Amino acid sequence: MSLETTVMRFMSYLDKINMLNGVLATLYFDASTGAPNGAADSRAKRMGFLSSEIFSMQVSDEMKGYLDILGEQQDKLDEVVLAMYRVSKRVYDKKAKTPVELVRRFSELKSKAEVIWRDAKNNNDFNAFAPCLQELVAMNKKLLSYREGDAHPYDMLLDDYEEGLTMQVCDEFFGKLRASIVPLLRRITESGKQNDTGLRGIPVDIAKQREISRMIAQKVGYDLNRGLIRETEHPFCSGAGRDDVRITTHYYENEFLSSFYSIIHECGHAIYEQNKKDEIANTILDRGISAGLHESQSRFYENVLGRSKPFWDYICEELKTYLPEGYSKATPDMFFKTVNEVKPSLIRIYADELTYCLHIMMRYEIEKMMFSDGVDVYDLPRIWNEKMQEYLGLTPPDDARGVLQDVHWSAGLMGYFPTYALGSAYAAQFLAYMRREMDVDALIRKGDFAVITAWLTKHIHSHGSVYTPAKLVGRIAGEQLNADYYIEYLTNKFSAVYGLEAGN
Amino acid sequence: MSLETTVMRFMSYLDKINMLNGVLATLYFDASTGAPNGAADSRAKRMGFLSSEIFSMQVSDEMKGYLDILGEQQDKLDEVVLAMYRVSKRVYDKKAKTPVELVRRFSELKSKAEVIWRDAKNNNDFNAFAPCLQELVAMNKKLLSYREGDAHPYDMLLDDYEEGLTMQVCDEFFGKLRASIVPLLRRITESGKQNDTGLRGIPVDIAKQREISRMIAQKVGYDLNRGLIRETEHPFCSGAGRDDVRITTHYYENEFLSSFYSIIHECGHAIYEQNKKDEIANTILDRGISAGLHESQSRFYENVLGRSKPFWDYICEELKTYLPEGYSKATPDMFFKTVNEVKPSLIRIYADELTYCLHIMMRYEIEKMMFSDGVDVYDLPRIWNEKMQEYLGLTPPDDARGVLQDVHWSAGLMGYFPTYALGSAYAAQFLAYMRREMDVDALIRKGDFAVITAWLTKHIHSHGSVYTPAKLVGRIAGEQLNADYYIEYLTNKFSAVYGLEAGN
Repeated sequence: MSLETTVMRFMSYLDKINMLNGVLATLYFDASTGAPNGAADSRAKRMGFLSSEIFSMQVSDEMKGYLDILGEQQDKLDEVVLAMYRVSKRVYDKKAKTPVELVRRFSELKSKAEVIWRDAKNNNDFNAFAPCLQELVAMNKKLLSYREGDAHPYDMLLDDYEEGLTMQVCDEFFGKLRASIVPLLRRITESGKQNDTGLRGIPVDIAKQREISRMIAQKVGYDLNRGLIRETEHPFCSGAGRDDVRITTHYYENEFLSSFYSIIHECGHAIYEQNKKDEIANTILDRGISAGLHESQSRFYENVLGRSKPFWDYICEELKTYLPEGYSKATPDMFFKTVNEVKPSLIRIYADELTYCLHIMMRYEIEKMMFSDGVDVYDLPRIWNEKMQEYLGLTPPDDARGVLQDVHWSAGLMGYFPTYALGSAYAAQFLAYMRREMDVDALIRKGDFAVITAWLTKHIHSHGSVYTPAKLVGRIAGEQLNADYYIEYLTNKFSAVYGLEAGN
Repeated sequence: MSLETTVMRFMSYLDKINMLNGVLATLYFDASTGAPNGAADSRAKRMGFLSSEIFSMQVSDEMKGYLDILGEQQDKLDEVVLAMYRVSKRVYDKKAKTPVELVRRFSELKSKAEVIWRDAKNNNDFNAFAPCLQELVAMNKKLLSYREGDAHPYDMLLDDYEEGLTMQVCDEFFGKLRASIVPLLRRITESGKQNDTGLRGIPVDIAKQREISRMIAQKVGYDLNRGLIRETEHPFCSGAGRDDVRITTHYYENEFLSSFYSIIHECGHAIYEQNKKDEIANTILDRGISAGLHESQSRFYENVLGRSKPFWDYICEELKTYLPEGYSKATPDMFFKTVNEVKPSLIRIYADELTYCLHIMMRYEIEKMMFSDGVDVYDLPRIWNEKMQEYLGLTPPDDARGVLQDVHWSAGLMGYFPTYALGSAYAAQFLAYMRREMDVDALIRKGDFAVITAWLTKHIHSHGSVYTPAKLVGRIAGEQLNADYYIEYLTNKFSAVYGLEAGN
């Protein structure tokens, strides 16, 4: 068979996998947005069936055949086909040797674990969850032992969500954050300065909040002709190719800023997905490259853009036309101070922009221990509380508000947390690059977000999964993840918010 | 291979087909309820891919292998497996010999035809659609020529939607209707009596209409835990197995009775789907048996139950608690008269319960001509208008409100219309049977719909596709479709509504 024919067949094979992925995305969205409860079992069965069809195709002999031929002739492949090869090979290597029976047992364990975790959290009883957590770590290690290569298990997990990420990179990254952000936070809390946050809590009609969502989504550049906004308990973004990218939010009458920012956050994810170039539309490259880079876009729109002073200079008056009388005296500065209040919190999902990365840091440190040092899981509450005190100056009154707060571990998601902090750091890094070329503040103050999105599209969005994260980031300014940009960004911003000297 | 093993593999094979059908139903519902326009192409591609996967499985060598073995040992199969064999064999025989290329071309023609038809209707230009209609009939005949057996092409089409239905059955059925309903309609129109329909047109808030929908849906027995109500331009019911049966409606502020009855109608379809017995849940038998019997259930709930006087006796006061001041003087009798106004209409979808079957009858007669007599399609407007005058006493002022009004032919749906009239007739027939066992009016007047649904479930819903329509209907009272029940029902009902002597 000629190389050309092999490439054609390979692409048509991937096309089928990609269509099934798109179908699964639609089913997932349906399941998450009000599908009848009574059909949960049959729905799970159908989704499991499609997932296993996709899995079979990813590790089939046919796939191996393509990968073997293309692997030998990589130098003859164009950039897009080479990327398809790379992405498929990566999945093949991660999955092909894993015993299907073990994957099935791990799935079962995760289903069981989520229920046990929820009960343990509700009953504030970590010991009820501990054996299960131990089993999750053990089975995860067992699964990883079948992988190609001899990387450290936790490095393998980091790589699953962020290709190329290692403990070495994380240690340096979080080391810098620890050295800078912990003292910065202390300076802010010890300064005793408090922002006026009186704007919080003035009720806004849900119908009005829905209008605000559409307004702000369109302003930041989310294309509603290729997307839609629905309502769910937990906001998310889900796509079936760049022309069908959906977001959800949750409205609280007394906290309109909650949905306001969740919309902008999800729009960041969605804009990434919607702006891929034509050559890769509806192929397996038509998706964001990694969890960290995805989060960099949601954080960019939410925080870098949406929580900036110029943004509030731009949006304040227009937003007030949607808001009730209680907001009539609100100024850009009042909003800016309100949405940037620094207040160490026990709970990650309520954390402000400054302290968020500290929550992630302690989770990274604990996960690393779980996979490296053979830590006794029954010690985790103590370890958790010590780190909480050290980094945030708080001690949880119970484990429900401590080590038991997140769903991730029970869902088998280990090695995922770091991508949240990477996302914020990349967002600040991209802002710094952008500033070399344009007056970002002036553009935001004019509401000219399209120029900003065009920059992100050129360097990030358009490429989908064509490059590895390292290649993609490196292409922009010749360097890799660098925590310094993030630290400088946070230091400057929050020194300004709290009127501190930026220097020390 | 033992018979037992064959049956197990056959069932597992069907299970996959059925899961793909369920997936497709969910995708269809998603596509019809607000999925992004911009993704129409990629969505159609994914749905086409799944459809062709299902098609391949239905006519595969593997399927043929099962059918051959099971066909020889039918006497050893239990009722459910035998039904699975029968249903699969029926599909296989209809599809296996059809050239895939021809199916593809027919699909393309249908896509094109819907656009041409819509333009022709908008421009009131039948001649623009005529060549396309001619081609649709010709290609349909061509497709049918590959089928097993030597039945008449139009009989094959009738059988597609209603197993066992033939022109012979239809001729007798419509012949009786023509002889009875046309004179009955003339008596009503010539009597000059007019119902007071002043209740129409008093606006009802859409939010209130949504509440009414949920109220009435639950009252008639639609299980919202295994279903949901959304809003679309054209109401429909769509299911992915008995535990996930969804309905939609459309609200008009000035016509709350429109959504009121569309909800009851779709609930009829949905209740049929939701009430199948456990043995066939989530199998290929977990669906209504035919278009006509499905319509019998929607018409039963909508008309037999919902437009009866006892129903209004029951619901009137409670409904008024949802309605504005303008309805405060409304009585059961006023509602009953309003919703049973007989008024010959040019447009089928606006027809009342009495004249509806006449619209269907003329479409049947014309379809039969198209497939039998080699009628010149350019003559259809004249033929249409003559029949319209003969049966309904009206002449369309243009073809847009005449022969061009329905989407069906452009969508390739030929042989489908008769099932609408069959549905209404079966509904009346079932009512007559039911009356032999219980005081239906008294039950309705008490709102005790559960007893009525239980009867329908016992005789119809629970069996899904286990029996053929003939077998299912025959099991109830030992007879087949009989137009007399329907004629008697319409004659009695509308004689009462218009105060005529029932006898002549």
